[in-house]
Amino acid sequence: MKKAVCLISGGLDSCVTAHIAKDNNYKIYALTFRYGQRHKKELKCAKEIARILDSKDHIIFDLNLSQFGGSSLVNENIKIEENKLENIGKKIPSTYVPARNTIFLSIALAYAEVVDADAIFIGVTSTDYSGYPDCRPEFIESFQKTANLATKRAIEGKKVEINTPLIFKSKSKIIKKGVELGVPFEKTWSCYRGEQKACGKCDSCKLRLKGFEKAGYKDPLDYK
Amino acid sequence: MKKAVCLISGGLDSCVTAHIAKDNNYKIYALTFRYGQRHKKELKCAKEIARILDSKDHIIFDLNLSQFGGSSLVNENIKIEENKLENIGKKIPSTYVPARNTIFLSIALAYAEVVDADAIFIGVTSTDYSGYPDCRPEFIESFQKTANLATKRAIEGKKVEINTPLIFKSKSKIIKKGVELGVPFEKTWSCYRGEQKACGKCDSCKLRLKGFEKAGYKDPLDYK
Repeated sequence: MKKAVCLISGGLDSCVTAHIAKDNNYKIYALTFRYGQRHKKELKCAKEIARILDSKDHIIFDLNLSQFGGSSLVNENIKIEENKLENIGKKIPSTYVPARNTIFLSIALAYAEVVDADAIFIGVTSTDYSGYPDCRPEFIESFQKTANLATKRAIEGKKVEINTPLIFKSKSKIIKKGVELGVPFEKTWSCYRGEQKACGKCDSCKLRLKGFEKAGYKDPLDYK
Repeated sequence: MKKAVCLISGGLDSCVTAHIAKDNNYKIYALTFRYGQRHKKELKCAKEIARILDSKDHIIFDLNLSQFGGSSLVNENIKIEENKLENIGKKIPSTYVPARNTIFLSIALAYAEVVDADAIFIGVTSTDYSGYPDCRPEFIESFQKTANLATKRAIEGKKVEINTPLIFKSKSKIIKKGVELGVPFEKTWSCYRGEQKACGKCDSCKLRLKGFEKAGYKDPLDYK
């Protein structure tokens, strides 16, 4: 059976992505980062999702990115902005975490090498949320080339394929795909604020709600 | 004044590299990883070197790579091999840590973005120690391209240059350069074993001793 390291944040996109990996007959090795994010609620969701996917293993990797600061997602002194839906993605938001996906993919690559995995699955999307530089297809293609040179496994001719099945999908298409695969959306968490109920106001909530609306489904989460 | 993130491990190569950055008029932001390595003695050396270089800041970044295992450097159950000098570099040694330089450079990139640094200095060498895939020039070149796509800073046209001044230098040339720059070799640590005295037998010790011999200097460290 093929093996895949799946980055599972506890959010909607990574949950759908991991279900796609499972649907493609990969044995899942789940990887979640505890990187100082405000929305720690995601971590609980990630554990539950990894369990549902019958993951072979689930590594929660500690990574204190808040010691650098530089992002509202890891620094409580920077305000999380609330953009109008039509403005989301027009500029890089304060929630951008410097080099986050480069770091996440690098660590996934190490994990993939150790468990001899053929693939990494990451739920980046460039369509609805083009504000993040490290969610763009050109970034992923470049990282793939770097990965092909970086490891012992690659030198031995066994590449690790970086899969981004959602990269060109809109949020509503992602949700439709999730429904098709039986994704438990009630176990996913998107709100940047990580309070008892989702705020419904941050960029992430707005995109999620709009996605459900366009897909024609009701988001099972409770909102304020 | 230009700013550079310098990866300082406490070893000889990274110490010479950081001195080269200093000599090129960079303000130093030191970055050291505590990644589960056996040779923790390096960390003490790194702190001292960062202090000597008058670093603006020194971040010790915790990164538990031992939870993956896969290397004798982070897993005490895997034996550190002792190769003959002429065989070092012929195959990838057990001390190879999966994707280590990809991970280190990614985190350096995040740090560089936050402090608005123009450069990263890393002491990789491909000459004496060609066994590590992520010390090769083609890996560094590829990572540079990925870095140019990865960050907000890069999108704004401000690239972070990855400098590897030692990449084509032999150990003896590195030592000569270090002598020229007044590098305090007595503060550096190379032995993989990290005991009271350097073992003199692991690949790292052998290369260091041979380098000093060829350069015509005496290594100030105590050996068993």
